Amino acid sequence: MTETGDALVLFMPSGRRGRFEIGTPLLDAARSLGVYVESVCGGRGLCGRCQITPTPGQFAKHKITARPENLSPPNEVEARYSGRRALPADRRLSCQAKILGDMVVDVPTDSAVNKQVVRKRAENRSIDRDTATRLMYVEVTEPDMANPSGDLDRLSEALEREWMVKGARLDPPLFAKLQKTLRKGEWKVTAAVHDDGDGPLITALWPGLQQRAFGLAVDIGSTTIAAHLVDMMSGRTVASAGTANPQVRFGEDLMSRVSYVLMNPDGLPALTEAVRGAVNGLAEKVARDAGATRDLIVEATFVGNPVMHHIFLGIDPTELGGAPFALAVSGPLALAARDIGVEIMDGGRAYVLPCIAGHVGADAAAATLAEAPHKTDRITLMVDVGTNAEIVLGSRDRLLAASSPTGPAFEGAEISCGQRAAPGAIERVRIDPETLQAKVKVIGCDRWSDEPEFAEEAPAVGVTGICGSGIVETIAEMFLAGIISEDGVVNGALAESSDRVVANGRTFTYVLWRGATMDITVTQNDVRAIQLAKAALYAGVRLLMDKLGVDHVERIRLAGAFGSYIDPKYAMVLGLIPDCELDQVAAVGNAAGTGARMALLNRGHRREVEELVREVEKIETALEPRFQEHFVNAMALPNKTEPFPHLSEAVALPARQQPAGDTGAPRRRGGRQRR
Amino acid sequence: MTETGDALVLFMPSGRRGRFEIGTPLLDAARSLGVYVESVCGGRGLCGRCQITPTPGQFAKHKITARPENLSPPNEVEARYSGRRALPADRRLSCQAKILGDMVVDVPTDSAVNKQVVRKRAENRSIDRDTATRLMYVEVTEPDMANPSGDLDRLSEALEREWMVKGARLDPPLFAKLQKTLRKGEWKVTAAVHDDGDGPLITALWPGLQQRAFGLAVDIGSTTIAAHLVDMMSGRTVASAGTANPQVRFGEDLMSRVSYVLMNPDGLPALTEAVRGAVNGLAEKVARDAGATRDLIVEATFVGNPVMHHIFLGIDPTELGGAPFALAVSGPLALAARDIGVEIMDGGRAYVLPCIAGHVGADAAAATLAEAPHKTDRITLMVDVGTNAEIVLGSRDRLLAASSPTGPAFEGAEISCGQRAAPGAIERVRIDPETLQAKVKVIGCDRWSDEPEFAEEAPAVGVTGICGSGIVETIAEMFLAGIISEDGVVNGALAESSDRVVANGRTFTYVLWRGATMDITVTQNDVRAIQLAKAALYAGVRLLMDKLGVDHVERIRLAGAFGSYIDPKYAMVLGLIPDCELDQVAAVGNAAGTGARMALLNRGHRREVEELVREVEKIETALEPRFQEHFVNAMALPNKTEPFPHLSEAVALPARQQPAGDTGAPRRRGGRQRR
Repeated sequence: MTETGDALVLFMPSGRRGRFEIGTPLLDAARSLGVYVESVCGGRGLCGRCQITPTPGQFAKHKITARPENLSPPNEVEARYSGRRALPADRRLSCQAKILGDMVVDVPTDSAVNKQVVRKRAENRSIDRDTATRLMYVEVTEPDMANPSGDLDRLSEALEREWMVKGARLDPPLFAKLQKTLRKGEWKVTAAVHDDGDGPLITALWPGLQQRAFGLAVDIGSTTIAAHLVDMMSGRTVASAGTANPQVRFGEDLMSRVSYVLMNPDGLPALTEAVRGAVNGLAEKVARDAGATRDLIVEATFVGNPVMHHIFLGIDPTELGGAPFALAVSGPLALAARDIGVEIMDGGRAYVLPCIAGHVGADAAAATLAEAPHKTDRITLMVDVGTNAEIVLGSRDRLLAASSPTGPAFEGAEISCGQRAAPGAIERVRIDPETLQAKVKVIGCDRWSDEPEFAEEAPAVGVTGICGSGIVETIAEMFLAGIISEDGVVNGALAESSDRVVANGRTFTYVLWRGATMDITVTQNDVRAIQLAKAALYAGVRLLMDKLGVDHVERIRLAGAFGSYIDPKYAMVLGLIPDCELDQVAAVGNAAGTGARMALLNRGHRREVEELVREVEKIETALEPRFQEHFVNAMALPNKTEPFPHLSEAVALPARQQPAGDTGAPRRRGGRQRR
Repeated sequence: MTETGDALVLFMPSGRRGRFEIGTPLLDAARSLGVYVESVCGGRGLCGRCQITPTPGQFAKHKITARPENLSPPNEVEARYSGRRALPADRRLSCQAKILGDMVVDVPTDSAVNKQVVRKRAENRSIDRDTATRLMYVEVTEPDMANPSGDLDRLSEALEREWMVKGARLDPPLFAKLQKTLRKGEWKVTAAVHDDGDGPLITALWPGLQQRAFGLAVDIGSTTIAAHLVDMMSGRTVASAGTANPQVRFGEDLMSRVSYVLMNPDGLPALTEAVRGAVNGLAEKVARDAGATRDLIVEATFVGNPVMHHIFLGIDPTELGGAPFALAVSGPLALAARDIGVEIMDGGRAYVLPCIAGHVGADAAAATLAEAPHKTDRITLMVDVGTNAEIVLGSRDRLLAASSPTGPAFEGAEISCGQRAAPGAIERVRIDPETLQAKVKVIGCDRWSDEPEFAEEAPAVGVTGICGSGIVETIAEMFLAGIISEDGVVNGALAESSDRVVANGRTFTYVLWRGATMDITVTQNDVRAIQLAKAALYAGVRLLMDKLGVDHVERIRLAGAFGSYIDPKYAMVLGLIPDCELDQVAAVGNAAGTGARMALLNRGHRREVEELVREVEKIETALEPRFQEHFVNAMALPNKTEPFPHLSEAVALPARQQPAGDTGAPRRRGGRQRR
């Protein structure tokens, strides 16, 4: 190797490899291959961020013999660093370790410096980092009368000399701080440099070596706004918080907020201010929870459905309330956080993920980014249920997106005993097919209602209603217990044998829960509302399956709060989603939030979601004649469009009934033609 | 020509030429050659901005025979335009006139549309236009459910389709307006698109065809802030206004304002606010004067000396008050006007010209841009006198810049009867060498004081003092009349023969004006103060001449208010400037303002001034040992360093006196060596 003056270096786990001149620091080698190794101090051995683990040995597969002596021995700089902070025995500072021969190097997935930070949530998955904002420590030339350049020029020169950052501009809010920071740091400063393809911009400046920087990922939901504080140096989420969207005082659901603006054209600023205020409050809270401050938050990313997206940006959402449902701004936005009233550090940047279409927002785009159907060969269905269900279907080859007008039934609205997910709301239901008695679980208590501890441990408010996920389970259990037919009709004949089924005018009502002061019941109208909602969702899914030319899906991902709480089995019994292997159906929680964190931590993910949104085929259900047909067919339970082999295997479905009235078996496939 | 399917077109006065396919519209041909022809409507024949004059004939020199029939005859679109607005007989719309054969075309230097606008000032010179912000009329595709893109996407598509503007972003303040503007204009809108090398940004949007856009060029002086409103479509200055810099309440001269901030570190925001407030007031005023509004001002450019530059940007100027006189920000700044508190249109942009060095500001850079010594072979001296004199010397080959600490004497401070230039201040002086009686002119009256109308027409305040330019003339006239010697000593012997020379302790005072209540006098100290100031200026000039290796200059340009009012002859008599042919000495008025207008109207001029500032050699007088030597030598009148052949020819100088004390002829060249 030394004859040719260069050596082969393999970086794991990325597998990137290259030949480098003898004497090249490993950090430089990694960078030239695009292997992301953090470094704040610019190779001075101060920050300790650039740790790697050399792995000498025989790597027959890679044809590399990496001898321990092929790396320069630890030098004084590393010894000094070890003296200040613990450097694990197997670690080296890649800025100091020089290539002397062939070598294999393991790059830890996160920096070892912040190991004490606890992983807070299971969904806190590891995201490769390539942040748009990076901290760069530089030593700036002092001013000299003989060479009268400006402080900024000399800072810029230092960034070029030490970090190969050319022509960095200074964000105007930093004008006033530049001089004092340089002098306070005695011409040694750390700059936050943002570059998202639009040229380097110095967005913050600290005296001396600054090693803390945070990012904020925000998911603006209609009901809840959630924010995650991410340590930009390690990629870890260090604090999360949520708050009710304060816009609810302008309207519980999306369309009522759109109506509010329509009726009060001057009311938009108040809505915008409300949501921005909530975001700023969350930024403050998560920063405090993490022992940080808002002025350490260098960037923020935002996702939300189209209406929230628009209101957050100060854009009138009323166009989204009617055809042609035209978005004003749909593409990705990269801007100064201050320009949209977001109070992070003065020079902080904001990135708003792109929307897919008028009803398929940046939240769906982010969820798609996170669940990556575009990276798998398996046909994947992603559903995020709200007032509109956002649906993405496809695989690596082709991706389709649409939204279905499910209405607010799944959110507990339009249901006689429906309520928001809150303590006291029924969320789990089991109905005994023999007695038709139900046991329930309510939010705020881990016990079933037939356990003795329930009375004691139930929330003080008692059992107050049924939340969205509870409704799905109740209707599904009613169907499995034979209380309602395939067609959704409450079987009045049962009223004779059970006190749980009671007449209610010309229809019948099921009594789910008998309370001290009030009963929780499911009326025929409630069943119909859920049937309509689930038929709309299913029809949308089915339409996309038609467009994609598939008759089954291989993976289902249920995103969002509703998706997190419903049991996939009941969703399938109800016919909310098509038949699928049950273990291939998973709730993925706040996938939109995950997508927001991905865009925060990696510029590549921004390009990926932008490409994704450009490429995905947008289907407008309202324009599709077959949507109506699918909708009618999907009213039945589980639904009459498809066979459901996987569901039948997993659940004992009631024996098929003969058709009553105009619904039933004969219409199972292509019903309309035969009618 | 037609055999090959193309034709030769020559554009005048630029002389650019090229071959184009038959049928190419002249506008497209002009653009492909980089010939600037305005057009707002994008070739639809609506705006009439793209007028050119075809000039058929034989052009032997250019080997072109341009037959009238080599241009397509006027078409319907032009007929329609002519119907709405007058199209001069010799004019064609270049978007409609198609090339049918060889042609010579004259591009009018300004658009014919706004001919009614009156030229207001002589200095309103024509500036080639290539504005960073341009108006672009587009027809945007309407939203379509089947193709659910955002309004911005479709606007951006239209800009690309019709204007070849790729990937335009929308400035955040426009988010809220986008939808309504598109719909109000029925999908026909005019966008202001800014691109200064940093990518296209939509900064404003109007429904329909918008043909008015203005720019603001601002010169922030220590004493006065001047603003010019420029019609971006014609390049003409349509309104100008000035206001006293409100910072004077924090200190009359620059250094006292620096001291104010030094003593009151929290006082900076008040100074910044004061200057920004004044700028915004001027923007309002010039817009109103021109029958426009601030929200039609698309861009603003700013120049100022380093202290004003820093305070305007919110940067502490105290570093500029002491060695090493380090600027915080010296480079050019391109930013959102709102980020520096400038209230023009919401998305308006600001461009701040670069400073040259800690004492040589953006005003000097702009003046250099305007006077263009870097474009001539003749050695040019540019001087802008203030508390510091900013000096630029050189030619195409090499350019040097320095500042000299003249102190405030030239501004009327430190002079016993000195005052600011205001009505009542003496600005012109003639002294009769026989009688030693003086006649004067005062600001606010066109008469000499010996004219009978003077008493009647003089300002009500009477004769109140001597302004800066008046002082120069007074001292020079005193020298020419023999009242003071070459060494600046008031000749006490004259007191015997004239009541105009009176004893004042051990020195003598000259009585310039006998007033009813007070006399205006020039004391020996006054003479000394001016000698010190002029010696400092001259020493700086001489130092640069040394550095450049020249012993005379070929052109002198006196910039700034002071430069505008002094008579070049007296400046030379006083030895303020080196000897030069008198007709090569010119006051160029507000050259800094002209430079600001150039940067406003042409992106090329921005690159030019940026290059200029990088290339100019900065000389720090305080570091130069010869500066002190030159300074001492320059105390005499006219000065003793140089012969003055041109001045001697133009003015009858007093006979040379023998040296008294340590100044005089023997030291004229290289005095120090011989001392």
